[in-house]
Amino acid sequence: MTEIQGVGEFGLIARLSAAAGTPPSPYGPGDDAALVSTSDGRVVVTTDLLVEGTHFRRDWSDAYDIGRKSAAQNLADVAAMGARPTSLLIGLGAPARFPTAEFDALAAGIRDECAEAGAVLIGGDLVAAPQLVISGTALGVLEGRPPVLRSGARPGDLVGVVGRLGWAAAGLRLLLAGERHGPLIDAHRRPRPPYALGPVLAAVGATSMCDVSDGLVSDLGHLAQASGVTFEIDSGSLPALGAPGVTDEELLTGGEDHALAFTLPAGTPLPLEAVLIGRVLEGPVQVRVDGHPARLRGYEHFGRG
Amino acid sequence: MTEIQGVGEFGLIARLSAAAGTPPSPYGPGDDAALVSTSDGRVVVTTDLLVEGTHFRRDWSDAYDIGRKSAAQNLADVAAMGARPTSLLIGLGAPARFPTAEFDALAAGIRDECAEAGAVLIGGDLVAAPQLVISGTALGVLEGRPPVLRSGARPGDLVGVVGRLGWAAAGLRLLLAGERHGPLIDAHRRPRPPYALGPVLAAVGATSMCDVSDGLVSDLGHLAQASGVTFEIDSGSLPALGAPGVTDEELLTGGEDHALAFTLPAGTPLPLEAVLIGRVLEGPVQVRVDGHPARLRGYEHFGRG
Repeated sequence: MTEIQGVGEFGLIARLSAAAGTPPSPYGPGDDAALVSTSDGRVVVTTDLLVEGTHFRRDWSDAYDIGRKSAAQNLADVAAMGARPTSLLIGLGAPARFPTAEFDALAAGIRDECAEAGAVLIGGDLVAAPQLVISGTALGVLEGRPPVLRSGARPGDLVGVVGRLGWAAAGLRLLLAGERHGPLIDAHRRPRPPYALGPVLAAVGATSMCDVSDGLVSDLGHLAQASGVTFEIDSGSLPALGAPGVTDEELLTGGEDHALAFTLPAGTPLPLEAVLIGRVLEGPVQVRVDGHPARLRGYEHFGRG
Repeated sequence: MTEIQGVGEFGLIARLSAAAGTPPSPYGPGDDAALVSTSDGRVVVTTDLLVEGTHFRRDWSDAYDIGRKSAAQNLADVAAMGARPTSLLIGLGAPARFPTAEFDALAAGIRDECAEAGAVLIGGDLVAAPQLVISGTALGVLEGRPPVLRSGARPGDLVGVVGRLGWAAAGLRLLLAGERHGPLIDAHRRPRPPYALGPVLAAVGATSMCDVSDGLVSDLGHLAQASGVTFEIDSGSLPALGAPGVTDEELLTGGEDHALAFTLPAGTPLPLEAVLIGRVLEGPVQVRVDGHPARLRGYEHFGRG
């Protein structure tokens, strides 16, 4: 089994570039920086860091899935602004003894998730590290639309979600219980963010949006705080976004599925995939579930617990 | 001494945003992604990953210097494209017990290096990690100029450098020998890339450019390879870019000073800071020093040795 220390940094970069396919311009991997074009003078950009042990375990996720997950996490943030993802950069830290076959699988996962989102891998960095560390930077274009911020929810707006809720959290629970196969475990290993719906929701007039990475209640809490409003959620609407085996608690607090949560004015025509889950009310900054204020319980790094 | 686990992720993000000063638009830290504007429809973007133990040691560099170094490494790549750095995103992985005072010092270092380059911290990510990991993503604008690529060097061009050569490598040698103070050690801890000269060199017509991060010979090797030419270097010109205590070897192979190496047509008016060090010849892909082919010895992660 070859290890990446035998291939060398520049050899690995060549393998990664080959896996990414032809870059969209002559300015992709290989120069000091990549060049991104935009028709409306604006680019949306976001970065995330995934660390082995914190965000994934290599005995639970194979390298291909880790590649897909790291790309998905960043690309979903772009879609959550109402932008169309166009480009991804990846910084990879790996032990010298990391197997070359796993490196190639990781690159393939990144490539396939980019393809899913309509984006292209345009650059990155490759360094030695004691454990696997993956930083991703995703860029996207708004194509003339205003960005959909967290601060735009207004009293009277409806609250909706596209994508999955609680799947990844239920999958993690099953993994901890020793299970290794099934749709929820697949969902934990490989989120399926509804990339294309970010721009669609922006186009129909979403007033605020974010991706559900910490958990529905927690992420709606961010919208409520940024917008200075109350969110009222009807828990009976949520199972349509879950799956068999997902608990009520996981629907409300499970993160990492990267669904898109949004608000829009009542009467707005909705995409078929959207599920309405509540409404925005005038009132204190809080999220209420079936009339009761919810504790904001989403995952927080360095949390006070 | 407080630790970052007591402050919480969102509290830390607030501290980081405060350290960064007012973002340039309402779309900075706090939303899923940041928004970058450009007048000419193009954005230059680059990412780098720094890992404790590989890129820095906390007993040799304090948190402030690590912040400056991580920002500098990315911002210099933008300048090396002939672009003006405008924005930086930082992904920070840190142990839960990382002291809050060091977190604040790191943020201050990032802020000060951004100011040095004329850029603003616009976003990032903050996660738990077993050791300090810093990913940076820098963006910049070309303001109508073509990007300066690695592939544009032509036979007959002159080769020049702006910035420092060998300082950081000499500083590392002194640190390894037990010294702790002096200008070379400062240079190792805190590179001073000549940011403003990237756009200047692009404007006067540089045909190729890169930043010297691996070592002069190695990085010129990248230009030679991308351009399909021979680089001929006159070693007698290099001490003007070094300092007392920097060896001839360190001038040729020391990295991490982030000087800018470039080529331009003979007769081009040069910025005052530029030192001409050789010329581009027709011939095989190689770097020759005083007529002798140089071994390409720069630092390579996962190197074959």
